[in-house]
Amino acid sequence: MATRRISTACLSRYSQNAFRTAPRSRSLLPISRPHSLRQLQTSPLLYQEQANVGKKRDPAPQLVRGESKLFKDADAAVADIKSGSTILSAGFGLCGTAETIIEALAKRGPESLNGLTAVSNNAGAAGGGGLSPLVQSGQIDRLILSFIGTNKSLEKQYLSGKIAIELCPQGTIAERIRAGGAGIPAFFTPTGINTLLQSGDIPVRLGPVDKATNKQTVLEGGQPRETRIFDGKVYGMEKAIKADVAILRAHKVDEAGNVQFRYTTKAFGQVMGKAAKVTIVEAENIVPVGEIHPDHVHLPGIYVDRIVPSKVEKVIEIRKLKEAEGQSNGEKSASQLRRERIAKRTAKELKNGYYVNLGVGIPTLAPSFLPSGSKVWIQSENGLLGMGAYPTEEEVDADVINAGKETVTIVPGGSTFDSAESFAMIRGGHIDVSVLGALEVSANGDLANFMIPGKVFKGMGGAMDLVGNPDQTKIVIATDHVAKDGSPKIVEQCALPLTGAKCVSTIITDLCVFEVDRTKGGLTLTELAPGVTVETIKEKTGAKFAIADDIKSME
Amino acid sequence: MATRRISTACLSRYSQNAFRTAPRSRSLLPISRPHSLRQLQTSPLLYQEQANVGKKRDPAPQLVRGESKLFKDADAAVADIKSGSTILSAGFGLCGTAETIIEALAKRGPESLNGLTAVSNNAGAAGGGGLSPLVQSGQIDRLILSFIGTNKSLEKQYLSGKIAIELCPQGTIAERIRAGGAGIPAFFTPTGINTLLQSGDIPVRLGPVDKATNKQTVLEGGQPRETRIFDGKVYGMEKAIKADVAILRAHKVDEAGNVQFRYTTKAFGQVMGKAAKVTIVEAENIVPVGEIHPDHVHLPGIYVDRIVPSKVEKVIEIRKLKEAEGQSNGEKSASQLRRERIAKRTAKELKNGYYVNLGVGIPTLAPSFLPSGSKVWIQSENGLLGMGAYPTEEEVDADVINAGKETVTIVPGGSTFDSAESFAMIRGGHIDVSVLGALEVSANGDLANFMIPGKVFKGMGGAMDLVGNPDQTKIVIATDHVAKDGSPKIVEQCALPLTGAKCVSTIITDLCVFEVDRTKGGLTLTELAPGVTVETIKEKTGAKFAIADDIKSME
Repeated sequence: MATRRISTACLSRYSQNAFRTAPRSRSLLPISRPHSLRQLQTSPLLYQEQANVGKKRDPAPQLVRGESKLFKDADAAVADIKSGSTILSAGFGLCGTAETIIEALAKRGPESLNGLTAVSNNAGAAGGGGLSPLVQSGQIDRLILSFIGTNKSLEKQYLSGKIAIELCPQGTIAERIRAGGAGIPAFFTPTGINTLLQSGDIPVRLGPVDKATNKQTVLEGGQPRETRIFDGKVYGMEKAIKADVAILRAHKVDEAGNVQFRYTTKAFGQVMGKAAKVTIVEAENIVPVGEIHPDHVHLPGIYVDRIVPSKVEKVIEIRKLKEAEGQSNGEKSASQLRRERIAKRTAKELKNGYYVNLGVGIPTLAPSFLPSGSKVWIQSENGLLGMGAYPTEEEVDADVINAGKETVTIVPGGSTFDSAESFAMIRGGHIDVSVLGALEVSANGDLANFMIPGKVFKGMGGAMDLVGNPDQTKIVIATDHVAKDGSPKIVEQCALPLTGAKCVSTIITDLCVFEVDRTKGGLTLTELAPGVTVETIKEKTGAKFAIADDIKSME
Repeated sequence: MATRRISTACLSRYSQNAFRTAPRSRSLLPISRPHSLRQLQTSPLLYQEQANVGKKRDPAPQLVRGESKLFKDADAAVADIKSGSTILSAGFGLCGTAETIIEALAKRGPESLNGLTAVSNNAGAAGGGGLSPLVQSGQIDRLILSFIGTNKSLEKQYLSGKIAIELCPQGTIAERIRAGGAGIPAFFTPTGINTLLQSGDIPVRLGPVDKATNKQTVLEGGQPRETRIFDGKVYGMEKAIKADVAILRAHKVDEAGNVQFRYTTKAFGQVMGKAAKVTIVEAENIVPVGEIHPDHVHLPGIYVDRIVPSKVEKVIEIRKLKEAEGQSNGEKSASQLRRERIAKRTAKELKNGYYVNLGVGIPTLAPSFLPSGSKVWIQSENGLLGMGAYPTEEEVDADVINAGKETVTIVPGGSTFDSAESFAMIRGGHIDVSVLGALEVSANGDLANFMIPGKVFKGMGGAMDLVGNPDQTKIVIATDHVAKDGSPKIVEQCALPLTGAKCVSTIITDLCVFEVDRTKGGLTLTELAPGVTVETIKEKTGAKFAIADDIKSME
């Protein structure tokens, strides 16, 4: 009757002392926080060991109330997780991933634990970490994620049909998980409208190559989204994600389960911890109850069921450092000059006081071209507002990364928040300008930048969310005018799968600037780079365009 | 093109020095925080004065970026709010209400500012405060709220048709506002299903009495909710609430607009600040940028457009103090004994380690009957987990109140959060047990406790939300067995408007305990108070019931 599978049987089972263990010796605990360790050693009832009893197999581990939430280690805390479970795995890149718990899950091995569905923004990095061990061991059968990125081994497993992947925009994943925790079965979002996501055409599980057509078969397709119009705009319905287990890593956890995260480790930890039947947190610091101020609890204890000490060191996925003064004074390459020209013009879109989101690559170069005295707040969709420069060696902090997984800093006045909040900020149109790169952009403002069918399947990350509210957030594309093979990137109609339709307002290239009429469709050439003629633009552009009467120089 | 009505005209207007004023003298500022005041006095561009220019009337005030967010006072910050605006007014009871800003709005007077729609959990208290001045002045035409409570003057204005009231469950209001800020146009919720809310039968605006029928006419009815089944359960669709202006009060605000709330003032402030075109915060302390830790910003600066110093002292609506030892040792009244019997039995429903929500009245007495060593976490739906006892005189804090607006304390390990999060916790079924009072409760578990048509129109507050997930949160009713007039409260079918259908699992009265079969319907008498016979129960109960084989004594 009571919440989340508290059965009387379960309660009585846990009141038997046989199911508890004495604390393990201090040497097994990696974190030496004097006061918490003292606690751990003196209280005989502080630990709770969960045995994989296996009489009646429930789909989820059993939740108990009234016992200590402290488990002696991750092995004990994951012992009763069942094959076929759905697991929410927190972290963005390798920031905030529950490495200790994932190690324990992998240690169970494929015989004991398999057929898992994992929900995670990305499933480990190319070099390991995150969910990689479980992907490699074959324990994960299905993933819901937004970004595969450079994780080639995962991409290979997907392409060979060994693993099913439901690609889902980052903000939509976050919001679906939030909904799951909040008792909201479904909601409407503008993200992904007019894309393969809406039509259900991103394959989930691939099969063998069909000999007749020489094409890979699709064993399971995507789920088309139901659409509906509110106030004249089309939205898609998304359903909540709930799970059996959530695993996360946090900086500080008190013995009542109250959690405090550091910086960008909040991303998915805060929201995932609320949407599972049983939430397991690995704590870098276990502190006594009362040590965390009530106003600064990021995840209240009600959501946290098991606490284990974190044993695995934090990993930095991309250690990016501030360039030393004068370091880049050498001769600039043509490509560098092109990029700088685009970035310099892009900087003009970032007005004083604006809140902006800058995509990976050229867009991130723009702030260095801002006039002195101009203050722009940079949002990073992994949960940071007020992103600063790359850190010096001393400033590097594994818990402060940007959406490109690079180490960054936070400016004074910055703030951190979870991914549901970050994308609420984005989807809600609170960002003034969002600058992105493009594979293709069309004359009516369609953008393609996330997928080349049969070639690139790296995921949309947060891009579909970022272009989801173009009436309130101006979408600027900063890109080379042509692709590496010289073919035009600006086209009449995109051939590649769309990230968003009719969303782009301005296109800035190394050669020129186009303004896009998102309502009627159509490009107007408004600025030309020095020395570039209209003829050149015509030659290198795959779409018709009008020419502004007062065409300006790009500089 | 850029976010939220930043027009070029507006930007250029604000770059003219004519529209700024020098800071006012120190004597006008009520809060003497040395460093912030120094800032205010030394920087000539720190203040921004918003004139009510009124050339082209926009529906919302204009948002500017790149200017100081500090306004010299509330008058300047509300000068351009237009008649007919929708205003989100934060606060729960009188905790966190923007008294200074409301005073400034009232000062504009009905000629300058009228026809407002206000969204607020409650619209001022019986003794004034909150939105009361705007209700009394007639500047508010329509209210969206969950609770009128004892605010007789508001009830009178509603009953006389002077003001329209859209009653909406507290959690649904919070979630609709969150959706508004997050770019979610609509979502589904279990709250209010099978009630007058779903059918649209709570009148919004009343008209004169129809002479033929002698009944008050309804000029505007409620909006019936569209329903839909997910996983076998019925949900209603709710639409987002967005507004022109949000007004809130906060403890600490930095000059970039980052906000920190104290304790239960978070309730609606955090969520409302994100859903308006222009958000105005009155700050008890204005601090320099960088003073608030990025991890502890409750409302990031991107959402805050105008900051004014708070000039009005905090009000305590119900100053409730801890009873001194031995104070209640006198003879107990029959009513007191009845209440204690119910509370004592109710305490048995609150198992060690449970997270519970206790309604106003008898339910709140239960914790004092818990066995020693038993630890129960009490949730208060205004955004507090870990509610403690009433405070001593020294402990009283206007920023720490419970859902009954009484001063309370927070236990070690407690946490605070906004109302959207609080009701996510409730709706999501994370609370183990919710105990409520009843006007009527039926044999199949229907509950009526919020309205007596034509007589009591105080609102449902959070009650509909609290009973919205009875499969995961056990609903216990703690009530006198009969009403004051002796009529049975336990009936075959409720005659009064329902708070929720098939939601009650256990009914505890001064005479007995009934278990309810929520699936098939039907009561089973399981416990009897000492000296009470089955015959007495039959006499005083308006519904048939089965009798348990092993009927027990209630003690």
